[in-house]
Amino acid sequence: MASVDVPVALLGYGTVGAAVNRLLTDSADDIERATGHRLRVVKALVRDVGKERDYPPPGGVLTTDFDEIAGDPSISVVAEVMGGIDPAGGYVLELLRGGKHVVSANKQLVARRGAELFEAASAGGVQLRFEASVCAAIPVIKVLRESLVVTNVHRVLGIVNGTTNFVLTEMERGKSYDDALADAKRLGYAEADPTDDVSGADAAAKMAILATVAFNSRVDLADVDYRGITDVDLDDVAAARDLDMVIRLVGAARLVDGGFDVRVQPALVDKQHPLAKVNGAFNAVMLQGDAIREITLQGPGAGGIETASAVIADMVSVIGTMGTGFLQNDAAWRQVPKLPPGESTSPFYFRLSVEDRPGALARVADELAQRDVSIARLLQRPNGSGAALHVVTHEGRAGALDEALHALERLPEVHRRSRPMPVISDRGVAELGWA
Amino acid sequence: MASVDVPVALLGYGTVGAAVNRLLTDSADDIERATGHRLRVVKALVRDVGKERDYPPPGGVLTTDFDEIAGDPSISVVAEVMGGIDPAGGYVLELLRGGKHVVSANKQLVARRGAELFEAASAGGVQLRFEASVCAAIPVIKVLRESLVVTNVHRVLGIVNGTTNFVLTEMERGKSYDDALADAKRLGYAEADPTDDVSGADAAAKMAILATVAFNSRVDLADVDYRGITDVDLDDVAAARDLDMVIRLVGAARLVDGGFDVRVQPALVDKQHPLAKVNGAFNAVMLQGDAIREITLQGPGAGGIETASAVIADMVSVIGTMGTGFLQNDAAWRQVPKLPPGESTSPFYFRLSVEDRPGALARVADELAQRDVSIARLLQRPNGSGAALHVVTHEGRAGALDEALHALERLPEVHRRSRPMPVISDRGVAELGWA
Repeated sequence: MASVDVPVALLGYGTVGAAVNRLLTDSADDIERATGHRLRVVKALVRDVGKERDYPPPGGVLTTDFDEIAGDPSISVVAEVMGGIDPAGGYVLELLRGGKHVVSANKQLVARRGAELFEAASAGGVQLRFEASVCAAIPVIKVLRESLVVTNVHRVLGIVNGTTNFVLTEMERGKSYDDALADAKRLGYAEADPTDDVSGADAAAKMAILATVAFNSRVDLADVDYRGITDVDLDDVAAARDLDMVIRLVGAARLVDGGFDVRVQPALVDKQHPLAKVNGAFNAVMLQGDAIREITLQGPGAGGIETASAVIADMVSVIGTMGTGFLQNDAAWRQVPKLPPGESTSPFYFRLSVEDRPGALARVADELAQRDVSIARLLQRPNGSGAALHVVTHEGRAGALDEALHALERLPEVHRRSRPMPVISDRGVAELGWA
Repeated sequence: MASVDVPVALLGYGTVGAAVNRLLTDSADDIERATGHRLRVVKALVRDVGKERDYPPPGGVLTTDFDEIAGDPSISVVAEVMGGIDPAGGYVLELLRGGKHVVSANKQLVARRGAELFEAASAGGVQLRFEASVCAAIPVIKVLRESLVVTNVHRVLGIVNGTTNFVLTEMERGKSYDDALADAKRLGYAEADPTDDVSGADAAAKMAILATVAFNSRVDLADVDYRGITDVDLDDVAAARDLDMVIRLVGAARLVDGGFDVRVQPALVDKQHPLAKVNGAFNAVMLQGDAIREITLQGPGAGGIETASAVIADMVSVIGTMGTGFLQNDAAWRQVPKLPPGESTSPFYFRLSVEDRPGALARVADELAQRDVSIARLLQRPNGSGAALHVVTHEGRAGALDEALHALERLPEVHRRSRPMPVISDRGVAELGWA
């Protein structure tokens, strides 16, 4: 196989960009042996050429002038590893329209402007790949697009944010939320400003991308309801433990008759369930479909070198399928509507602080029954001068539960109620804890 | 995108073949939308056209004449789903040499005759894909070849046989080996003759294929040392439980300086380790590499429809990369030797029945020390009139341990010894059981 020289460019030369250049250099022989092509970074767009960097590229590679990349006909593949929406979005659109293949590690960009980007790729006759935008080196996009082409994936469950998973894992060991988050920062699992992670926004962007690819219908970031872990407390963690469960920030995407439902929220996950076994900063994505039952991919969901490895795999895939455009058209060919609010269904857990007096339980049970919220398990325990009611419902509409909970709040016997959390388990409710 | 009609053929029309035809028919629109190609089974080679079948194809599709496939220039892609070495191997070689792409679900064929098959594919200028030959729908071959191209995978750990995993999972619940195997047969997880599964031969073929692709060096089935689960007893299961571990049939492939080591054997797996969490008939493969730390893929490792889904994904990938031959040359471009026997290293567990008299432990410890077998943990317990010694060693050479165990057998104080099992854990030995 004659070797083909492939000049590539990077937008950005931070941690990921430097790692891409280093891996491409160190693995040039491997890539050439496998593909017959030798990839070489010839330009990298940065804001400040003079800044000190890890793995600095040879002189002349760094540039502050985008046109040196966009206008260079020898460059056919560009990796966007700069992050942010502006100016990254404009650059990517221009490159695609100009006929350059683009690989992006930018989840916010793909989740917010996917439709526009794919239109530009189609207009330019080129590929847009984005494996690195979701869970770094875990190859979930390639698997969804290329391996599960006939499987009708109808459910995606994921732990797609390592920061929050680390914090929740540490809280299981008794640490407070604040201490666990401080540890995450100290160990490099959380940024100085962890808002995007703990609010669920980061996970929501990843779930929007995954749902779009899995369901073949555009799921915009705005279509994803999300709630983070900031209000998860040690009482929740203890309640989960009593049920032989753990709390995880779960991204859940479902395709049901007539609609999709994509959300990110803290959930009670059965310890027997594969997602409960994802500890620390790891990520996992479970894909459920007709022909495959379920396939779970697990690994490190972040990291410079891990992300760079996914960027390079995408570049290599682009090169290997240039001309055929294999499976790289916009995955979203249909328009499935978002399920109306409240139509999402799940078993749920919640707890109430009630007065310990005759009739309190009866009134609670009555309010739930009136709204068709069916109790699967209930535990009453003394709690100071009153009682705590822990409730697990059968599968039901979130909207019905919300109405019931608002009604319960108005009862004089009910002093406080927790936010409901979905329960994720493959076992019957009868096999859960509270033995 | 104009639709392209792609006539394909099958060798075999059993459970998997019928499922391929059904999935291709049912998902024709999905495939066309994703790829622009419409795949259609036009011929299927069988021994008996008149036999009653699931999902029978239209008249004229079934044939007993191989030349109707080999000699039909309109057929460019053939799926081999007949199994066995002969005549499947000869057919596949002829098709490849004749310029037809082949997708095979046949692990024995790929593991035993891989080199010859890839040579034929190269001669014919076509692709040979074999995703379905390892763990059905779990896309581990595609991930290794296309996603992990720059990661230097140096270790593959797998639970790649569902039958034995089911049996071992049931034994953990107290069932005897025979009862668990009978249940596996009843539930369809084991064949009437389960020899290939329980002997480890099936897992060995899969590990040979995985190691070849991961290490880029041919690992023949004959290079894989394997031992099955037939001599695992409830004492082993109980001993594992005491250490907070479970017994699993683990395929382990390692690339170390100067050699590879690929083996299948029962191992003690730490309950905290991802492989311990694979229950029942599921499979999991863990890939460890420089740039990715570790990625684990988990799912159903068998089943007609699951296997068919992988066959179709391969067919679609062939069509999407025809002409470029993207990453589908023989993965084995170098020759790494097999490590000499005994050079494989691991922490190990074994136990001895010894006489309960002064000096017995000292003599055992002395024999181990003389051969540099370093004890990490030791537990002595009364056992009838004598004592049972449970030993976990530090990482060491298997050969040294074997020598030590043979020496121990010659001691008059030692009545019996178990076979050693490797210990798989990410935790330090100090954190294991025997609290």
